[in-house]
Amino acid sequence: MRYLRLKVAYDGAAYAGWQIQPSDPTVQQLLQNAWREVTGESIAIVASGRTDSGVHALGQVCSAATESELPGDILLKALNANLPPDIRVLKIDDAPLGFHAIRDATGKTYRYQIQFGQLANVFLRNHYWHIRKGLDVGRMREAAGELVGEHDFAAFQAVGAERVSSVRIVHRIELIERQVDGFDELFIVISANGFLYNMVRIIAGSLVLVGRHKQPVGWLTTVLESRDRRTAGPTAPAHGLVLVQVDYAF
Amino acid sequence: MRYLRLKVAYDGAAYAGWQIQPSDPTVQQLLQNAWREVTGESIAIVASGRTDSGVHALGQVCSAATESELPGDILLKALNANLPPDIRVLKIDDAPLGFHAIRDATGKTYRYQIQFGQLANVFLRNHYWHIRKGLDVGRMREAAGELVGEHDFAAFQAVGAERVSSVRIVHRIELIERQVDGFDELFIVISANGFLYNMVRIIAGSLVLVGRHKQPVGWLTTVLESRDRRTAGPTAPAHGLVLVQVDYAF
Repeated sequence: MRYLRLKVAYDGAAYAGWQIQPSDPTVQQLLQNAWREVTGESIAIVASGRTDSGVHALGQVCSAATESELPGDILLKALNANLPPDIRVLKIDDAPLGFHAIRDATGKTYRYQIQFGQLANVFLRNHYWHIRKGLDVGRMREAAGELVGEHDFAAFQAVGAERVSSVRIVHRIELIERQVDGFDELFIVISANGFLYNMVRIIAGSLVLVGRHKQPVGWLTTVLESRDRRTAGPTAPAHGLVLVQVDYAF
Repeated sequence: MRYLRLKVAYDGAAYAGWQIQPSDPTVQQLLQNAWREVTGESIAIVASGRTDSGVHALGQVCSAATESELPGDILLKALNANLPPDIRVLKIDDAPLGFHAIRDATGKTYRYQIQFGQLANVFLRNHYWHIRKGLDVGRMREAAGELVGEHDFAAFQAVGAERVSSVRIVHRIELIERQVDGFDELFIVISANGFLYNMVRIIAGSLVLVGRHKQPVGWLTTVLESRDRRTAGPTAPAHGLVLVQVDYAF
């Protein structure tokens, strides 16, 4: 048995998320179908996280245990030839025995993409949340600092999806502004040792309230302390979210 | 009668180009439908150029002669509310009496968008031409200089679409390299007093031959001199082309 690590990118717009569903197409299903076409094997490809419907990835990491002896570069080309252009395998490496993309992950980085201003850039509409109002990014940056560090993020997880522990370590939250073709863009980049369900999208929705002067700087500290989802901001839409990187110890 | 100048952006992926067609949806048709919804008027909206199927615009300019007295900002919001999200009216200004978007244009700028390297960025697949091989951009830049100035561009127009004169003045060709999320991008930005049919796409296809060392620097000069379409490179695909700006004297 050979263990492989795959780095995968996808545009989530056309998919019902990562995980196989009874009816709608998913990224996992198309990847496993391509795998069967190329190797003849029907295996489960495990991703570091089951991204939701509409969520994108530039650096999803998957594990696969295979009997195939195809070299990684041949496998990569063959898989891509059997995948639609909105899913690309970017890299295949041999991984340590027993490698498991969920269990072995030590951290992740997500990017939440916003465009703001009265008019949207038509090219970004499927990958950015469009906010008509202006955003005070300096204020958002200040507020984001309140979330960095080890905290109980219970207020920032979807109701009904509670985990055993809701304590996570946020290593950094970076707000990056760009102006492209006259349109204002904002990336909220968040790295943590792990994320609760909808955590990035609730953080993004909450930071936007601060950026729109609907909530003061300092508010996020009280939200954290409340441990109550109802005190945080709305869940930002799925289509602005990109899984950028997954970290492993090896 | 009131003359208006509209600045319009669109993602061309879903459209059979600008001009109204008997069956497939076009940008002109959707814009004229929205106009009728908002003002009650059935008018012809004239664009500076009839972009082809799949071609995009960030700065298409249109003229409209109207009896409507709606202020420009109200009209803009109402039109956008009646347009799909892949077409946006960005600006509406009052224009001089008799303003005509084709006749009055004094110059245009197009951008041809390329991504190159073995693997494509999934987010760019509808708006960039993907070339698997590397490109020698320095060489392309040198070759592009041969096209700047006043020349007979007969070799760079689609066969069967010949104009009265094929002499045009290319003001500049700029090659802009970017690396975004680890993927290589190249913009070819071309400004001229006017363009022949498929001129930008044939120039892009020809520059790529130089960038791939399939043709030498100096070759484009001989292509120009030939005035023969068969000597130039292939027509680059429509989906990489963006109309960026249209210039007027007023």
